[in-house]
Amino acid sequence: MSAPSELHAAVPRPADLASALAALRERTPLVQCLTNSVVMQWTANVLLAAGAAPAMVDNPEEAGAFAAVADGVLVNLGTPRQETVDAMGRAVAGAAAAGTPWVLDPVGAGALPWRTRAMVDLLDRAAPAVVRGNASEILGLTGGRGGRGPESVSSAEEALPVARDLAREQGSVVAVSGPVDHVTDGRRVVRVANGSPLLTKVTGGGCALGALVAAFAGTSGDPLLAAAAATATYTVAAEVAAEQAAGPGSFAVALLDALGALTPAELAERVVLA
Amino acid sequence: MSAPSELHAAVPRPADLASALAALRERTPLVQCLTNSVVMQWTANVLLAAGAAPAMVDNPEEAGAFAAVADGVLVNLGTPRQETVDAMGRAVAGAAAAGTPWVLDPVGAGALPWRTRAMVDLLDRAAPAVVRGNASEILGLTGGRGGRGPESVSSAEEALPVARDLAREQGSVVAVSGPVDHVTDGRRVVRVANGSPLLTKVTGGGCALGALVAAFAGTSGDPLLAAAAATATYTVAAEVAAEQAAGPGSFAVALLDALGALTPAELAERVVLA
Amino acid sequence: MSAPSELHAAVPRPADLASALAALRERTPLVQCLTNSVVMQWTANVLLAAGAAPAMVDNPEEAGAFAAVADGVLVNLGTPRQETVDAMGRAVAGAAAAGTPWVLDPVGAGALPWRTRAMVDLLDRAAPAVVRGNASEILGLTGGRGGRGPESVSSAEEALPVARDLAREQGSVVAVSGPVDHVTDGRRVVRVANGSPLLTKVTGGGCALGALVAAFAGTSGDPLLAAAAATATYTVAAEVAAEQAAGPGSFAVALLDALGALTPAELAERVVLA
Repeated sequence: MSAPSELHAAVPRPADLASALAALRERTPLVQCLTNSVVMQWTANVLLAAGAAPAMVDNPEEAGAFAAVADGVLVNLGTPRQETVDAMGRAVAGAAAAGTPWVLDPVGAGALPWRTRAMVDLLDRAAPAVVRGNASEILGLTGGRGGRGPESVSSAEEALPVARDLAREQGSVVAVSGPVDHVTDGRRVVRVANGSPLLTKVTGGGCALGALVAAFAGTSGDPLLAAAAATATYTVAAEVAAEQAAGPGSFAVALLDALGALTPAELAERVVLA
Repeated sequence: MSAPSELHAAVPRPADLASALAALRERTPLVQCLTNSVVMQWTANVLLAAGAAPAMVDNPEEAGAFAAVADGVLVNLGTPRQETVDAMGRAVAGAAAAGTPWVLDPVGAGALPWRTRAMVDLLDRAAPAVVRGNASEILGLTGGRGGRGPESVSSAEEALPVARDLAREQGSVVAVSGPVDHVTDGRRVVRVANGSPLLTKVTGGGCALGALVAAFAGTSGDPLLAAAAATATYTVAAEVAAEQAAGPGSFAVALLDALGALTPAELAERVVLA
Repeated sequence: MSAPSELHAAVPRPADLASALAALRERTPLVQCLTNSVVMQWTANVLLAAGAAPAMVDNPEEAGAFAAVADGVLVNLGTPRQETVDAMGRAVAGAAAAGTPWVLDPVGAGALPWRTRAMVDLLDRAAPAVVRGNASEILGLTGGRGGRGPESVSSAEEALPVARDLAREQGSVVAVSGPVDHVTDGRRVVRVANGSPLLTKVTGGGCALGALVAAFAGTSGDPLLAAAAATATYTVAAEVAAEQAAGPGSFAVALLDALGALTPAELAERVVLA
């Protein structure tokens, strides 16, 4: 008896990440974002710079139908309201029915019970292609100890066992952001060791990565590859940007420029997979 | 019997656009913006840089009364919610009663039925001074084929006949954005051939132009001149900005700087009216 | 009978402001912001650059409980909605119960009756540590003549007597922004004469200062020192930024960089206390 084919699926290599970026640029995926009101502009600009097309269709009247035509859907609970949560439920249902991959960014999970329940309800409705958060949010989502909001208090490495379990239970890829990002589908693990501490000094530094994961998920059949390629694209561009930044303001500007200029070849050359 | 005076109204010349910009700077029009949550910050910053005063008064309790004291009102349906749509109805009614010019930016018209109906309801309530959108949105608003959200799929030139009809039916000026912007009141047509492809890589690239049209409409008696002057000011500044930009991040920053520095004389010199 | 100790409290000196900034950097206060939708991103980025941790927890379900764990709370009524106002009431109650200092930014007070009533209701519920606004807003909040929205029409100096009375009645510090900022607790007055006119060309130029006041209030026991230190930090950084800015776009970027780079020693050296 041979093992299921997933067991033989290879861990993505730099060349695979480069191909994923080339595919994204080729197809300009339409990414529906139901995200928090703090980071909407930054998120849209990151998607545009990278080569995707953002559409913030986040009301209950339109969210479900739009998820069927979008290439990927982001659900981020950074500033949830009852009306937004309703729209998220419809978007997830619409995405599941249409086969559109969706990504959950569980901002504040564990620290804030109301939104944590809302996230669990979404997870019960349909499995996301990818869950992306920092360590404390991944722990908080699974009932572990939470953080004090968007700030991470645990390392991605520490959260890996929990992330693996969550990935297996949900049938989702889990991406844990940190100095070294950890991406796992429950079996395979990709570690991306690029980035810059300045990413934590720009609001939406992590939230925009969630949107980019949805963009890659919309153009790649393998959610692990999508999450790894998004992480690599974003953190390599952040490294390039940090080299020329004088602080968090110029860093954010340079990051958009770097995302627009990054080539698949440069990505393959600079990414550090640990 | 002599023809109505509008028939003799001249097409704006570069000197007219320069005078309109000088008048805007002189009067600092107060622009009430009921716009989408993605582009609020960018829109306010564009208005401030150009010389207007933004006020995002967009709740049902205040929107109607404020429209009576504002110099111009922008209504943009990029992220509509029921409460916002209610506020828009009140703002349009308040503007109509007070004679305040209002501008409709029909984001996603045609592609999304719920918001398209909301836009048609607003048009039925009172004629806007100007409708500003991309080609697919203008087509979508008039029942033609829509786009897939904020991305335009038709050229402004193709949409011109429909724009002319809409302008005549509504008694509004219609401005169609694109590589060459087309502005028409149903009889006259102004083509503005400035701009930069980078405008499509910054979220709110078009939305902020709608707000600028409202600012010019608040200081000019001729909506065609207002729409043409706003378009020229914005796209000439974009050209200046693109010359020094390394990507979409630095372009957006340079565009605000260029809007602040642009003089009426420079506008008249650089604008290309086709 | 000796006078109450407040009467002997000294007016803050440059060295006190420097110590307050050092304390903020040391403690990274968690600042809950219930603020307007235009300036959320800018506000969060200002807090991050200065050394605080923003959390925009602004829904009725979570706002009250979060105010108990936050170090400071900002309430800004720039784009109020009924749901947000409900959340603000809960945040203020939660802050008062937990002893968390809260800051009121009365955007549009006096000019817009509905939100002015909402502000007065909040003031009746509990005294804020600090009220921060421009002159017309402080006058509008106390029933004097209002402005036409976020634009100030009176000087901070003119508003000082009213600010002093408000401070005494509420038991709050009142900070009036202007070319020279005036901060008073009803007895002491601190005048900070730094800044740049470019601050009025960036949306949220004043709103972000309110958030920074909340951050300093969360790490200093003296609200007058907190308001003065926040004002000095922000306006000195603005001066540094203006020296290298080509307009409002590059100014905003440079301001974030300058906030990140500003040392306590540099603050003490550059601040001008009149």
